[in-house]
Order: sequence, then structure tokens, then C-alpha cells
Amino acid sequence: MQRAAVRLFARKGFAATGIRELGTAAGINSATLYHYAGGGKEELLVTIMRTCLDELLRAGRAAVASTDDPARQLGALIASHVGISAVNPLTAQVTDQEMRSLSPENRRSLVALRDDYESLFGAVLERGVRTGAFHVTDVHLARLAILEMCNGVAHWFRPDGRSSVADVQARFVEFGCRVAGAVPGHEPRALPPPIRLDIEPADTDREEATA
Amino acid sequence: MQRAAVRLFARKGFAATGIRELGTAAGINSATLYHYAGGGKEELLVTIMRTCLDELLRAGRAAVASTDDPARQLGALIASHVGISAVNPLTAQVTDQEMRSLSPENRRSLVALRDDYESLFGAVLERGVRTGAFHVTDVHLARLAILEMCNGVAHWFRPDGRSSVADVQARFVEFGCRVAGAVPGHEPRALPPPIRLDIEPADTDREEATA
Repeated sequence: MQRAAVRLFARKGFAATGIRELGTAAGINSATLYHYAGGGKEELLVTIMRTCLDELLRAGRAAVASTDDPARQLGALIASHVGISAVNPLTAQVTDQEMRSLSPENRRSLVALRDDYESLFGAVLERGVRTGAFHVTDVHLARLAILEMCNGVAHWFRPDGRSSVADVQARFVEFGCRVAGAVPGHEPRALPPPIRLDIEPADTDREEATA
Repeated sequence: MQRAAVRLFARKGFAATGIRELGTAAGINSATLYHYAGGGKEELLVTIMRTCLDELLRAGRAAVASTDDPARQLGALIASHVGISAVNPLTAQVTDQEMRSLSPENRRSLVALRDDYESLFGAVLERGVRTGAFHVTDVHLARLAILEMCNGVAHWFRPDGRSSVADVQARFVEFGCRVAGAVPGHEPRALPPPIRLDIEPADTDREEATA
């Protein structure tokens, strides 16, 4: 059910995905359908988004804990985010785009979870500026630039494209550290591979993805 | 009509926006509604996206033509893109997200327009690598990173937030030139202010926007 949902939500958007269509795609009966009609469609969205944010937060905390060096911490955070986005583009797209579709209570709770996650980047950037590892005039804007750069990966990456997940991770670690004005040469330690949450690659309309 | 459409498409998504709702929001009668029901909803989307991409392309070409220096050209391209995105977040969000909603023919034509636009960034990056102005291992990934970083602005910028459009432009020019490995000190020349296509600011769910 969740797999059918993430596929439809990513392709058509949450609001445009009908209960009936969801039922057909997941092969479920009318009693279950009734449950999903009664607010359960949003429960599905919440589960997808919470799974993604929980995994980003878990992996992000592990990345920060893996070293004391701010540039390596930032690199590990970026590698983790890029890896999860490239391996799970449908889940990552839905999480990135559908905050607007949640009811106020769910939205508050998931925005808080996302803020917790994004604050990992803010804290590492701030510490690096204090220690002289980074050179950034506006930590706030640097955090947004790095996060959006990484979020973009879910929208163009293809497993059959010209770059591997590891290539994209390596280059984006470099780009992110450059944005932070870090002195080069602080490669992040090897991290565990990203966990697979999606079951299939996303559609993409970018020529870049397959060129 | 186009203003009501861009607002609804940005808030709910194209596929979830009903013809009737569009009619009510725009205050139009049933004959016009009939026209829009017969494929005209997509015509509205195409007009919005084409207007945005035409303006990005026009301003981007002017940015590239404003100087011969690759770092200044890249800076001018970024300032232009960030400015248009910050001033027209609804139009920019719809253009960024709704390529998936187009029928194959319209999609081909608008993807081609977007590719033309994005190739401005690719050409400047490639020339800068050749002249030694930039230091980039993978121009392709650098272009995607810079473009997605700039696209993100439409999703979090608020006119009443902590940073002005000019602040965000200045910082993002710096970030983008850093991603390209440019030698600092190549500030772009002043550009004309971005053209206003939206009529109202976008909703945003990011605490960063107003913090």
C-alpha cells in the first residue's frame, strides 16, 4: 500500500491521487478503501514522510558523530543526504514537495522533524565558522543553499545515468564544502550505504539524467 | 485567469486544481469554463511555464552578454535566476514542478526551452574551465548543483523575511562561484531588477523564511 502510494504521490501529487486509484494500484478491497477514504490517505503520506525524515535524521546524526572535524562532518552530512535522495527519489520527492498537503497538526509535527534534521547542517556550519574551518558571511543562507542543492538530486538522478551514487556523493561533498569556504582536503570517512526505501526509480524529465 | 491559475497550481498542484475552482477563483462564466475544460487548463499551465522560461532565457542571455569574464558571467546568471525566483515564487515553483503534468507534445517543447536556458550555465562553466577561471572535475554535476541551489530560492524566500532579494543574490553568486572553484573577486556588474510575473508572495512552510 505504501509503495503504491509513494509512486502515485510522486507522479501525480498527493491531492490529485484518488482513493479508488490508490486501491486499484495496491490491489486492496473496499473495506480497506473505506478506511483510507476516512483520512487514511493522509496517514499514508505522513508515514512516507516520517519514514524519510526519520532515516535522514538517524543517518545525519551518525554522520555528525563520525568525526570532530567540521568539514568532515559537513561532508558526511551531504554524502548521507545525497545518498538517501539518489537511492530513494520517489520518497525524497514526496517528502520535499508535499508538506503543503498536510493538515495543520501533521504539518506542525513533520515540519518540526525536518527542522531538527536541517539544524544538524546549521550547527555544523556554525561550529565550523567559530573554529575557522569555514568562511561564510551568512550561515543561514549557506545552509539553505547546501540543502536545496542536495534535495535536487532526487529530481534528476537516475541509476542508469552517467554518474554513480558514489560519484554524485563525492562531487556534492566537494561543492558543499566549497560553499562553506572550507579548506580542501577533508574527505569524509566512508559511510554505510544509504537504506533503500523506494522500490523503483523515479520518472525524470531532465535530459541531464541520461545524457 | 492566469493569476488565479498560477496561485492554485502552486498551492494545490496542477492535477488537483479543478476547472470549477479555477472558474470561481477567476470569476469567469460557464462558456469560458467550457473552453478551459476542453484542454484549456493545460494551455494555462503552458502559458505560465513559457512566460517564466522565456523571461529566464531573455535575462540569462543578457547576463552572459554583459561581460566576457566567465566568473562574472556565472555570477550574473545566478543573480538573474535568484532574482526572478525570489520575486516570482509562484510562477517559478509551478515551472519547476509541473513539467510532469504536461502532455507529451507540450512537454517536449518546454523541456527544450528549459534545456536551452540551462545550457547557458553549462556553456559558461565549460568556457571557464577551458580558460582556467573555474576548477571543476564534473561540469555536468556542477551545473545541476548550481541550478538546484538557485531553484530552491522560490521555495523558501519571503519578501518579509530576514534577507532582501539583493542579499540572497549576492550570497548565492558567491556560493555558485565557489562551487565552480572560481578565484574570488569577480563581482558581477549590476543587472536590471527582476521582472514581476506573480501578484502575491507564496506560502512557505520553512521556519527559515521568517526567522
